[in-house]
Amino acid sequence: MEPAETTIGEYLIHRLYQLRVQHAFGIPGDYVLGFYKQLDESRIKIINTCDEQGAGFAATAYARVRGLGAVCVTYGVGGLKVVNTTAQAYAEETAVVVISGAPGVREQAGNPLLHHKVKEFDTQLKVFQQLTVAQTVLDNPATACREINRVLGAALCYRRPVYIELPRDMVTVKIVPQEEPLQPPDVDREPFREASREAVDMINAATQPVIVAGVELLRYGMHHHLQELVEKTNIPVTSTLLGKSAMGERHPGYIGLYEGGLSREDIRQYVESSDCIVLLGVLLTDLDLGIFTAHLDQGKSIHATSEKTSIRHHTYPGVYLNGFLLGLLQADIRRRETCETPHAPAPTPFHPAPDTRITVERLFQRLETFFDDSTFVIADTGDALFAAADISIPRAAEFMSSAYYASLGFAVPASLGVQLALPTLRPLVLVGDGAFQMTGMEVATAARYHLNPIIIVLNNSGYGTERPMLDGSFNDVYPWRYARLPELLGAGRGFDVQTEEQLEVALEAARGYRDGFCILDVRLDPYDFSPALRRMTSVLGKKVK
Amino acid sequence: MEPAETTIGEYLIHRLYQLRVQHAFGIPGDYVLGFYKQLDESRIKIINTCDEQGAGFAATAYARVRGLGAVCVTYGVGGLKVVNTTAQAYAEETAVVVISGAPGVREQAGNPLLHHKVKEFDTQLKVFQQLTVAQTVLDNPATACREINRVLGAALCYRRPVYIELPRDMVTVKIVPQEEPLQPPDVDREPFREASREAVDMINAATQPVIVAGVELLRYGMHHHLQELVEKTNIPVTSTLLGKSAMGERHPGYIGLYEGGLSREDIRQYVESSDCIVLLGVLLTDLDLGIFTAHLDQGKSIHATSEKTSIRHHTYPGVYLNGFLLGLLQADIRRRETCETPHAPAPTPFHPAPDTRITVERLFQRLETFFDDSTFVIADTGDALFAAADISIPRAAEFMSSAYYASLGFAVPASLGVQLALPTLRPLVLVGDGAFQMTGMEVATAARYHLNPIIIVLNNSGYGTERPMLDGSFNDVYPWRYARLPELLGAGRGFDVQTEEQLEVALEAARGYRDGFCILDVRLDPYDFSPALRRMTSVLGKKVK
Repeated sequence: MEPAETTIGEYLIHRLYQLRVQHAFGIPGDYVLGFYKQLDESRIKIINTCDEQGAGFAATAYARVRGLGAVCVTYGVGGLKVVNTTAQAYAEETAVVVISGAPGVREQAGNPLLHHKVKEFDTQLKVFQQLTVAQTVLDNPATACREINRVLGAALCYRRPVYIELPRDMVTVKIVPQEEPLQPPDVDREPFREASREAVDMINAATQPVIVAGVELLRYGMHHHLQELVEKTNIPVTSTLLGKSAMGERHPGYIGLYEGGLSREDIRQYVESSDCIVLLGVLLTDLDLGIFTAHLDQGKSIHATSEKTSIRHHTYPGVYLNGFLLGLLQADIRRRETCETPHAPAPTPFHPAPDTRITVERLFQRLETFFDDSTFVIADTGDALFAAADISIPRAAEFMSSAYYASLGFAVPASLGVQLALPTLRPLVLVGDGAFQMTGMEVATAARYHLNPIIIVLNNSGYGTERPMLDGSFNDVYPWRYARLPELLGAGRGFDVQTEEQLEVALEAARGYRDGFCILDVRLDPYDFSPALRRMTSVLGKKVK
Repeated sequence: MEPAETTIGEYLIHRLYQLRVQHAFGIPGDYVLGFYKQLDESRIKIINTCDEQGAGFAATAYARVRGLGAVCVTYGVGGLKVVNTTAQAYAEETAVVVISGAPGVREQAGNPLLHHKVKEFDTQLKVFQQLTVAQTVLDNPATACREINRVLGAALCYRRPVYIELPRDMVTVKIVPQEEPLQPPDVDREPFREASREAVDMINAATQPVIVAGVELLRYGMHHHLQELVEKTNIPVTSTLLGKSAMGERHPGYIGLYEGGLSREDIRQYVESSDCIVLLGVLLTDLDLGIFTAHLDQGKSIHATSEKTSIRHHTYPGVYLNGFLLGLLQADIRRRETCETPHAPAPTPFHPAPDTRITVERLFQRLETFFDDSTFVIADTGDALFAAADISIPRAAEFMSSAYYASLGFAVPASLGVQLALPTLRPLVLVGDGAFQMTGMEVATAARYHLNPIIIVLNNSGYGTERPMLDGSFNDVYPWRYARLPELLGAGRGFDVQTEEQLEVALEAARGYRDGFCILDVRLDPYDFSPALRRMTSVLGKKVK
């Protein structure tokens, strides 16, 4: 279907679009203007954010939903502003394509001091070599197609960011397109069969097996297969914080979140006393292991990841999650009787007490019943995340956070990526005031593109997570009147929330107003924390002092 | 004077304070909290910005005034957000110390997945190796003092950023302080004498010598010596854009800005027809050379930089700017008669025309007479800079921009650094709407610390510099009502400016209001450009298409 001749820039766009990238996030600059013109004339829509940081986070969220996302920036002053967002994508396994313009190949001759240059012309490339799984500079028309395919293939295979640098005099250079498969070639099936046989025997012999669902199920879009496995075998399933919503959390097989010693006690006991723990796509991070308070006996564990599978104390290199899980689905695992397992307490009906100041705990009690099937929850780092951990997400893959890299300021720009990728859903953004001040002005981008997130600012006048660890005025955040943002932007609706009744009124109004963003400034006591955060910081705080 | 015993963190603070660092910019996080506590208890004041990007820019501005600045962040999610600001500091020669917290040395054992980790524990260090002249990880009490001195010495010697990583379990480790000289050892004077003799002969033999003042005079604080040289010899002096204000621009010896083919024609002719061009601390960047339209005959040039001095076609390695300039001051250069030179046209008195829409040209005509000796002008990238190029800065070193690396969004956070470093001056910030949306919310930080910049938003509804190169809706910026910011922040004053009369009223009100920031939303036609920008983009645009 593709033309006999195309240009380097158009081929890149064509390939991205084939891979479901219909939006590219970024800010133009002179070294990337030619490529922006091509994008503008293509089927990919450009989404201009306020700052490149916002574009990087938005592209990351988009990539988590669509499998691939793109951020498109200029050289130096653009590229080096998405270093942190690319680092997050690397750490949390998200396939973001960073496309950076650059001075033309001919301009670079003689190594002149061109604007936006840091040290050498390859300085930016060297920075991204630390943060991406594949990189290329498209400076050669003869290899450009192959390079684009190699790099995009790596992004999809490893679900990690990649870097493509496009010198501006190469954008419209004509090439003959070559379509090559992006996926890696087939692997040896025998190790998979052996691992599967061993795992099945171990699972079938167990009296109390449990599945721990991890983030890679979400990243590789395998959560449907997880549900299939759970329904086929009736084995109870828990999830890590980073893997939250890999399983729909109102599914009868779901027992709740496992976070080591920070878990609800019945869940902790159930998981840690299991004689067969099947970890699927779990990253063994400090936050997922309850700051290493988890006690998971490796001698009773099966652990499949995107790179390898371990059973007890031995490893099958190259037996990766997707193939292993599909193998389990086809294997003869016996179906269990429904047994007594932990389950989430039924949501408490929320009756707003008059003239009662709102607390974190009551806010999340209310939110628990506010969600519906068209809500996508995005939690920023901090108590927004820890408090959200305990609420039930109705459908799989409709929750997002940065629960390992933990970069503040992810949630508001992420809501742009989520809603553009899933236009039938409405994002509910949970964000602290400190995080909001970093990137929250991207609500302007929501206004620009007619998106309608509901943004709940957990306004506790500071970096609340840090106060219980070590406090000082450096943990204070200057007060903004967040509910006034609609006046600044000429769009959206703002609500001041100090009491339970005001929360009720604001949430109902936000549900009813669909023409733009809504922002709720929820004023919390600076020392009011969720029960989950209190547990977390008492462990973290010991490491600070 | 120092105690017999101290801690690693306190020693670092002690050394910074000795070097005139009285403020550190940043945002705390758990890996750096212990060091924040030490800072909080020290004579260095912590300045919390909204986002780390703002801290990086503010520290850069502070460093340009004080000689050294510090940005203090947490690991990963903090450090990797100041990559771009550090790159700017590198490219434009500014001594910023990036201090990053890190997981404790003991925590790193076994290479666990700790939150904020990207790939390996040294990933962030490797990134900063590309962007700094010296780096250290303070993981060894036996070498910590020496390492701190080595790295701070390199920052001061090269006026470039450096990187110090401080694992959190090292902060309070006790050490015996060692005071060592930070400056590099003396150099061989003979090459300086030889270069100086040759230069003096060449200058004295010339009939029309001219001095071109570059940015390094500002960075090394040598602008006073430049003035001395000009007053001693009566040789006319011009400046590059990046070196703007190296010479007070109302000094009779100052002839105006030289920017190659983009210069005012009389200046271009005067400089390019000179038989002895003395370039002091000039970086030969594209923007400083009028996008390489400059014709400076190397056979008639003396070019001293921080690394070497060239006379005609030969080079004296190691004969650096400072020593060379001090040599010239002591040498026997003959004093010239005052002759006919170009000079800036007298400022046009501004009489606001009633009901006349404000234009860029008229705005800057008005600003020319608005400045006084207590104004420090900061121009962001774009027409804010190009239009500002032509206005006269009364006193040396009271203008700041990012005229080479050209990172949008520098100016508002820079105003924090400038005013904290120079509390008797009031910053006047010139910033486009696109740049403002990146970092402009740092006005909240101005409010927090009772600073009072006057911010002029050149609101032309887009990335105006790019429109003449290649236009599309991607150059549009979503409209904010900037004058409403005081309502959001509960501080400051805002003004809508659409006409010349409104400009006049707003400027006078801003001059009179000193209790907080003032923001003027100056609504310009999207296709209204300064004459300087029109010249610039016609050259730049040819490279884009």
